[in-house]
This record gives sequence, C-alpha cells and structure tokens, in this order.
Amino acid sequence: MLLNQEFLFTPGPTPIPDRVTRAMNQPMIGHRSQAFSQLLEETSTRLKPVFGSTEPVYLVAGSGTSALETAVTNVVTEGDDVIVIVAGAFGDRFANVCEAYGANVHRLDIEWGSACTPDRLEDFIKQLNTEIKAVFATYCETSTGVLNPIKELGKVTKQLTDALFIVDGVSCIGAVPVDMKSWHIDVLVAGSQKALMLPPGLAFIAINDDVKTVIKNCRTKRFYFDLNSYINSYETQKSTPFTPAVSLINGALEVCKMIEEEGMEQVISRHQLLKRMVREGLKAIELPLLVKDEDASPTVTAVKPENSSANELKKLLQQRYSIILGGGQKKLKGEIFRIGHMGYSTPFDILKVLGAIEMAVSQVEGRDVLGKATGKAEEVWSHEL
Amino acid sequence: MLLNQEFLFTPGPTPIPDRVTRAMNQPMIGHRSQAFSQLLEETSTRLKPVFGSTEPVYLVAGSGTSALETAVTNVVTEGDDVIVIVAGAFGDRFANVCEAYGANVHRLDIEWGSACTPDRLEDFIKQLNTEIKAVFATYCETSTGVLNPIKELGKVTKQLTDALFIVDGVSCIGAVPVDMKSWHIDVLVAGSQKALMLPPGLAFIAINDDVKTVIKNCRTKRFYFDLNSYINSYETQKSTPFTPAVSLINGALEVCKMIEEEGMEQVISRHQLLKRMVREGLKAIELPLLVKDEDASPTVTAVKPENSSANELKKLLQQRYSIILGGGQKKLKGEIFRIGHMGYSTPFDILKVLGAIEMAVSQVEGRDVLGKATGKAEEVWSHEL
Repeated sequence: MLLNQEFLFTPGPTPIPDRVTRAMNQPMIGHRSQAFSQLLEETSTRLKPVFGSTEPVYLVAGSGTSALETAVTNVVTEGDDVIVIVAGAFGDRFANVCEAYGANVHRLDIEWGSACTPDRLEDFIKQLNTEIKAVFATYCETSTGVLNPIKELGKVTKQLTDALFIVDGVSCIGAVPVDMKSWHIDVLVAGSQKALMLPPGLAFIAINDDVKTVIKNCRTKRFYFDLNSYINSYETQKSTPFTPAVSLINGALEVCKMIEEEGMEQVISRHQLLKRMVREGLKAIELPLLVKDEDASPTVTAVKPENSSANELKKLLQQRYSIILGGGQKKLKGEIFRIGHMGYSTPFDILKVLGAIEMAVSQVEGRDVLGKATGKAEEVWSHEL
Repeated sequence: MLLNQEFLFTPGPTPIPDRVTRAMNQPMIGHRSQAFSQLLEETSTRLKPVFGSTEPVYLVAGSGTSALETAVTNVVTEGDDVIVIVAGAFGDRFANVCEAYGANVHRLDIEWGSACTPDRLEDFIKQLNTEIKAVFATYCETSTGVLNPIKELGKVTKQLTDALFIVDGVSCIGAVPVDMKSWHIDVLVAGSQKALMLPPGLAFIAINDDVKTVIKNCRTKRFYFDLNSYINSYETQKSTPFTPAVSLINGALEVCKMIEEEGMEQVISRHQLLKRMVREGLKAIELPLLVKDEDASPTVTAVKPENSSANELKKLLQQRYSIILGGGQKKLKGEIFRIGHMGYSTPFDILKVLGAIEMAVSQVEGRDVLGKATGKAEEVWSHEL
C-alpha cells in the first residue's frame, strides 16, 4: 500500500469527509431526549431539498436494501400486480423484494448498460393491460452506471396508470436533481454510503403526503419497516419508533450542512463535471465505456476493456496503486470495472484515478497512454471554469 | 451543563470508549473486499464467547428491534402458537412483533418489576395444553431492570415442549453469563448500544446450528431479515448479503478486544459489583428499588421514589448535574427512573451518579443524605478488593 493509504473509488461505500467523521464522534446522547428530537427534526428537514421532497425524510437504521424493503412492504400487498424496471443488479433486487412479498411482478427487462426509455415503459404498460399497483424504477443503476430518466418515466406511469411510482435513489441522491411532486414520485429511497458521504447503516425514505393513506391501508405484515410507526413517531414525539442510528444521524446533519454550503445546484454540476472528465478521459485512451453518454450516471462509470481483462486491470490498480474499484456484478462479472465518483469527490480525484488507469493500461495493453486521459480530463475541467 | 459535558446513564445508548470511536474512524473500506471479509470473520468469531455461542454471530445493519424481528420472522409462521413472557415493555414488544406476523400469541404476563420464575412458565405451559412453536423470553427487561432466569426457563421449555427457546439479550449480552447450548437457547439476539459499548445501529443474532433447518423451512415472507441469506453469505463469501454497517463493525471488533483484555469473567463480575454498589447505595438513603435483589439485572436499576416524584428527581439531576437517566416506560411512566450501568462503566461512575442522586434527594425530599449512598457503595467496593 502507498503510505498505508487506500484510495476508495468503489460505487459505495465512498470516502467519509473528516468533518462528518468528527460529527459522528460527538458524545452519545439518549434518543428519548430533547437533543435527539432537535437533531432528528433538523436533519429530516434539511434533507428535504436533497430528496426534492416537501415532507420530512424518514430515517431508518439499516442499509440500502432495508430502504428498498420499506418502499415495497408499505405499499404492495400479496397478489398485487407491479412493474419493475430491471436494467441491472439493483433493479433485479427490487424485483426480488417484491417477489419475496408475493407481488405479481412484471419485469421490464432492459439490456444491462442501457437506460429504460419512456417509450419502452409505455409499450410495456400498454401490452400488459392489467391494473398495476406500482411501478418500481432505479434512478441510478449502480451495477452498470446507467441513470434512468426518472422524470419521464414518472410522467408515463401517471399518464397511463393509477399506479404508484417508486424510485430507488440509493446511488445518486445527493448528486442529481429530483423533484418528487412534479416528477410524480410517490416514494423515494436512498442509502447513506453513496453520494450522501456517510458510512453504511442509515436508510432514507421520502414519501409524498398523498401516499400516507396507502401506507395506512397496506395490509402487508411488517413491524420494523412499518412507516406508519415512523410517521406517527415523527408527528407526535419528534422521534423514531425504534432506537435510531444516532451517530450516523449526527453525520447526516453535517452532510446537509456541507451540501448547503456548496449549494445543491453546484453539487449537481460538480458531479456532471466528474462524469464528463472521467468519460472523456477514458475515451481519449480508447477504453470502451459500457454506457453511452446520454444514459450515463454522474456518480458511477463502468468500463468494459476490449484489449485486456477488466479483472486484471482492477487487480493491478489495487495492488500497485492502492486504487480500489468496483467489479462487475452478476451477468457483468469479469466483464467490467466500475469507478465511483460521487459524494466526497473532486476533479482531482478523477485525475488520480485516470492517472493510475493510464499506467495500468500502458503496462497491461502495452501501449503508451500516459498523460492522455488525464490531459483530456484537465481540458474538460479547464473549459468548465 | 457542567463544562459542556453530559453524563449518560440511560440504559442504552451508553457512553462509547475512545478506542472504539477511533476504531470506527478508520478510513472506509469496500464491503466486497478481502479486508472486509477478514473483519467480518474475526468479529463474528470473537463475539462467540460473548454470546455463549459455538457458531459465528450474524451482524445485521439495524437496531435492537430489527434483531427481535429477525428472531421472530425466521422461525415463526402465521398461525403458530407461541408463548411470550411479558414482564415489561420489551417483552411486550416481542409479543407485538409476533402478533404483527400473525402468530397466535399466548402472553405470560408477569407483574412489571418481577422476574418470571420457572414455576410460572411451567404452570403456564401445562394449562395451555397446545403445541407451542416457540417460547420468547427477555433476558434483561430494560424497562424494569429485571433479569429473567434464562437458564431455568430454557430448561422448563425443553422439558415440557418441543418449542424453540428464543431470547432477547439486547440490554445485557456483554455483561452477563450465557451458554446457548447448555441453556437450550436456539436464538439469542442483542443490540449494539447497550453492554456492547457501541452506537446504535448494529444488530447481533446468534443461533444454534440445529435451528438452521427451521430457518430454512420457515415460510414467513421476509427479505432483508432472511437469515438464510446471511448464513449463505457467511459460508460462501465470508460477507453479508446486503451492505453491512462497516464503521460499527470496526467498532465491534475493538469491543471484542476490550472484553478479551479484561476477560469475560471479570466483565461479568464488574457488572455484579456495579449492581451491588448502586443497590446498596440507594438502600442506604432509603430510595425504594423497583426490583428485589435476586431478580435484578446487573446492567440497569429502576428506582421508585416514595417521598418525591421520579420525574422531578430525574429532571433535577439533568438540569443541575448533567446526569442523564432513563424514565419509566408505558405503565411505569412517571413512576420510576432508571440508571444504566453497563458496558463502558466503572465503579467510579456509580459513585458519580449516587453522589448526584444524594444531592438531588437532599434538595427535593429535604433530608440530608449527602455521602451516605456513596459511602455505602465505597464500602461494597472495598470489600470486593
């Protein structure tokens, strides 16, 4: 390891800012205290603009999958017909959760590496010709680096059905625009260890006010993930029904402050810059990208080498340069590597990872690309200023 | 506040040792890495003696209630007859979780403040005369400070039934003896923010090997809490099925090291000492205890003042001395206050809280008890050495 450092470029978890770590190091407080109520109210309120929500964001102790399960079990009942857009491993997980709870899942399978177009969803809904309880979509499909056009998918859903529109925002919320009301999103969930710059273990659930009645009437058996308990505790006690992950919530408040200081618009455009730098840089050294520009997420980029092995490059980058990347998952296993660039990530981080990739490619593929990806990325950045 | 410090004596969360905080501050690592696999294997193995288990302990990102739900949903199916020993708010919660999943719950109600004797359970089982799927018991009932005689209750359960014996150890595991095999415990769960000296957000589930078949065959709908996924991930990948709470697990490993350095026997006897000091001290100033000595937990002590209001004392202790205590819950609301003394707690902490209580009692009840509780506690401690 270089100076005993590792450079974490996985698409979650991501590096934690020092000030967030310090916030999490505050002495423990009881969760039935006024101090905790203030912390919870402040955090859940300051998260609203990040989630494009008019309602306080609910915080559940658990990881991203617990957020998906909360989204499913509070609105879907056994036997309900639901559509799940599956464009990768996490769409697949949403479908699996729905199936585990007995929903009649209609999978809209999209080729891994492509986004779901509004037309595809429209055609799928029309040919189904069944009453649909909910449409589940993944905003950023972490396994491929695709960003689905949520705004347009929400529009199609509401034009053609009375279904709820439920969105997994785990690996992009905090880095991308979103507006729940005008985008017709009924439930939007996220996890802490992605663009929200926290360790894993905190799940975020934002809901539109209208959906509370659905949640209240949902008969699916649940306890820990029952949003009715959270809604009630927030409203009557400014607290959580079960012991909250206090240290992570302390961190979440600090993250809100960081986002406010930078400005949500600037956070979004920074991620756009990171995306352009990494993509143009990789194109400059002819490393093929899995996803085309217009479908690509600003938070994670998948690379599919043609003249070398993705695993070999990934391994070399780890062993020689202490750069930790994500690998391919399921049907993309061994085919791609993934670069996370979300949350606590600056353009210099892109230069770092591209520099290491240049050296690895030069060695493995035997062609001199030193300085070419970084040079191109610097050009992109320069033009931005 | 005194020097801007607060002194946390709630029965969870508890203060976090500095070295545990530092362990949690380590740079984030990916959870699909060899480093994480090593961390998980080491932690789940070193937790075995703490849980009296021969199997690795499963770690779930979630709080104590998520551990209870995991214990329920992996063995109980809708319509199953189960017995839940309810001697306080957390026995009641276990019953509520069972009910939420459609079990036919037979509540063995015990007066709040008393332990469930083996005879009570024996009589209850005999008069029920029904096939019972599981008996649920709370080791330390946090809401009253009662320690139920788990070893004896397990024995009765197995003598009279074929039921599983499932134990909530949330507020005492890490401070009390336990041996799953010889005590006939099939599932034992705990939370991080009690005697395990961590922030809330990590749930621990220990199982006997025999129960894996039951878990495999259990038809209850579940996904995030499905132990089959955890068992499979541990066995095949030395990992967790869903993103783990990495920072808390780093902390948990440090906690294991602290317990090993002190020695589990010494940890247990330290908690016994804390219990005797706090109880003898409070008796010396004639503050009535809710629970009799033989039923009392070494981790939390409930006080039921006769000549003053529990809430008034609690409030004064917070406002003047920055001592944070727990209040009464549900039917004991306003009747008691509770002193947590588990995990990162030394005899000096008992002297601190008793000193503050002496001052508060002297002021509120108008009788001079200064030095009397602390003096008695010091006497207890001196005799120990």
